[in-house]
Amino acid sequence: MENISEYLKELCTEARSAQALLAQSSDTKRNEALEAIAVSIVKRADDIINANKLDLEAAESAGLSKAMCDRLMLDLARIEKLAASVRKLKALPDPLGKSEGWTRPNGLMIERVSVPLGNVAVIYEARPNVTVDVAAICLKSGNAAILRGGKEAYNTNIALEEVIKSALESSGLPGALVSLVHDTSREGSNILMRLNGYIDVLIPRGGKGLISAVVENASVPVIETGAGNCHIYVDEFADIQKALDIVINAKVSRPSVCNAAEKLIVHKNIADEFLPIAAKALCDNNVELRGDERVRGIIKANPALDDDLTREYNDYIISIYVVDSLDCAIAHINAYSTGHSEAIVTENAENAQAFLDRINSAAVYHNASTRFTDGEEFGFGAEIGISTQKLHARGPFALEGLTTIKYRIRGNGQIR
Amino acid sequence: MENISEYLKELCTEARSAQALLAQSSDTKRNEALEAIAVSIVKRADDIINANKLDLEAAESAGLSKAMCDRLMLDLARIEKLAASVRKLKALPDPLGKSEGWTRPNGLMIERVSVPLGNVAVIYEARPNVTVDVAAICLKSGNAAILRGGKEAYNTNIALEEVIKSALESSGLPGALVSLVHDTSREGSNILMRLNGYIDVLIPRGGKGLISAVVENASVPVIETGAGNCHIYVDEFADIQKALDIVINAKVSRPSVCNAAEKLIVHKNIADEFLPIAAKALCDNNVELRGDERVRGIIKANPALDDDLTREYNDYIISIYVVDSLDCAIAHINAYSTGHSEAIVTENAENAQAFLDRINSAAVYHNASTRFTDGEEFGFGAEIGISTQKLHARGPFALEGLTTIKYRIRGNGQIR
Repeated sequence: MENISEYLKELCTEARSAQALLAQSSDTKRNEALEAIAVSIVKRADDIINANKLDLEAAESAGLSKAMCDRLMLDLARIEKLAASVRKLKALPDPLGKSEGWTRPNGLMIERVSVPLGNVAVIYEARPNVTVDVAAICLKSGNAAILRGGKEAYNTNIALEEVIKSALESSGLPGALVSLVHDTSREGSNILMRLNGYIDVLIPRGGKGLISAVVENASVPVIETGAGNCHIYVDEFADIQKALDIVINAKVSRPSVCNAAEKLIVHKNIADEFLPIAAKALCDNNVELRGDERVRGIIKANPALDDDLTREYNDYIISIYVVDSLDCAIAHINAYSTGHSEAIVTENAENAQAFLDRINSAAVYHNASTRFTDGEEFGFGAEIGISTQKLHARGPFALEGLTTIKYRIRGNGQIR
Repeated sequence: MENISEYLKELCTEARSAQALLAQSSDTKRNEALEAIAVSIVKRADDIINANKLDLEAAESAGLSKAMCDRLMLDLARIEKLAASVRKLKALPDPLGKSEGWTRPNGLMIERVSVPLGNVAVIYEARPNVTVDVAAICLKSGNAAILRGGKEAYNTNIALEEVIKSALESSGLPGALVSLVHDTSREGSNILMRLNGYIDVLIPRGGKGLISAVVENASVPVIETGAGNCHIYVDEFADIQKALDIVINAKVSRPSVCNAAEKLIVHKNIADEFLPIAAKALCDNNVELRGDERVRGIIKANPALDDDLTREYNDYIISIYVVDSLDCAIAHINAYSTGHSEAIVTENAENAQAFLDRINSAAVYHNASTRFTDGEEFGFGAEIGISTQKLHARGPFALEGLTTIKYRIRGNGQIR
């Protein structure tokens, strides 16, 4: 591409004009467009699957891992599932136009109303399902979507974009509402991150490298997502069976995701009893154990190094630490966590409340697995990501997180 | 300072420990601290005024403008006014601990609760009142304040910091909750902007140069404030007298502030009647008129250049444009505004509603002056700034804008 900057500005400008129309549309109109998309992606599944095959072949010859190829793959069943999730969004309440108002002593009537953010850009990796999910969530919330997908999924994304644009136009909305960035260079990505005035929010979805690059380089507003160095704290008053079930579930049910547990903190008074049982169950599930000195005095484990304190393994590895008190556990977690999800296992109500109050993370659990941090599991019906920053959105967010507010003020000639 | 980076990290780390305590304190406790600050700044007014004199002398010999010296100056009356505004904050409702909860089909009880942001950093210019205002708003909302004030107010800020820290300690809270950055170098400021993990939000308060520098360089989350290229649109169905009153008030009541009008857009059908009247009243108030070609066909004005479209003058200057339609006015404003405040003057309800709906700014007025965009005027009882971004806070924001949410989830052993 000759001039990526100009290309991106033009794309965003077209998106902005289209979004101005969408912002004035009814929920019914937006739902019609979602239905058209759901119908079209299934109807044109063959075109999408053929494009996907090109990407899969290239991925295989480039030697991408099986896991990556699997995430890249679309078949009819997966496309139908995507269509179903688009239809589920339709059924959710309209996040726009929610308002409250008050009148000031001078007679000014102030109304605070929820409106779309505008141009929402998402940078993501080789997961073509994200293309459809993000497009649909943006449309439902009145936003334009600027999609910068991974190069490995480029052909699939081009096919999906074409289907989505046609569906939008068939339902009377501009195709420019959903735009794939037809450039997968790092240079283009860096320019996108600095298009202040063209992009209202940028959401990175992917691994730590991608997220750090965005946080480091972006000058547009960002919602940081994803990184989860999640802790389970087994208190001295824990029910051993609950603790075991929760640790195993949080660690091994899906180790590659951000709400999986990476660290286990155990109170010294329960360590002798709990650690051998936990170690056995974890080893039975092929989990590599790492531990501090006190842990290695009780069970067999590799040494946990400084680097382990902050790492998100996304793998069958767990680091274990023994602490002297609840206070020490809280201090440890607040020091090393990424602020995603943490859990205490205890039958002591006071300790549970202290943990819930003092842990400084988006989601804090008492006697439940961290794996529940998820838009669906929270009952939001959708999810665009899990925010690990404190600004604007925190934890799983979807439609509401893609809105802002504005004030409409009605007077009869008031001056100050 | 030998190692500014280490110094700032240490300062933020101490603030974080102190904030963890504050976050667990009651509203009563926080109000006691505010009362102690209000009492102390008046009791120790002499110390503050003496320090301020040093800054004023330096400012005068450095040849700072009268307006800047006036903003820098503190006397007893101004200190008493500051104390009164701290007491006013006390009376506001607690923004923390507001919660809503729901139970999921699996029995998980999810609670969403408002909590402090954490470490709030503010970079500002030579206005020592900001030191007290920001400290008080941060304390009321459970946050630690990291204050990086302008070098011209350094002595005053040091004195204020000392008084505030003593007052905090006398009421049993750590002095580290309010910290002035004892370094006013640009290098230090640039390091502060990139202290991810140490600062939860950075708010620039000041002129365009400061705000752009922060938006451009910061990697920590930012709330962009202040820049106001505000427009008044006089519709063809405007009441001439209302339009005149609003234009004059919005332009001349305080031209240096961000909610002052900078641009006047006039419908062609009312231009011949309105422009001569408006021009006379503006000239009587010493306002320089700039206008496009059509304007200069009706009244005497300097040419409005390309640069004028986007400029915030903060001065006795206004640029005037004639448009063919309401649509043209809306397109013009959405293209060139900073998204702060805009107003329509019209007696036509439909045009008013279209303007309120389609203008893409934080505050949109019908028949009222843009000068009302202000925390006090909106009834919030305080203000830390006026956000011109869409993320997290928009328009005037104060206590609620300094909170985030977290989820507390209670289970009885649920796994996924």
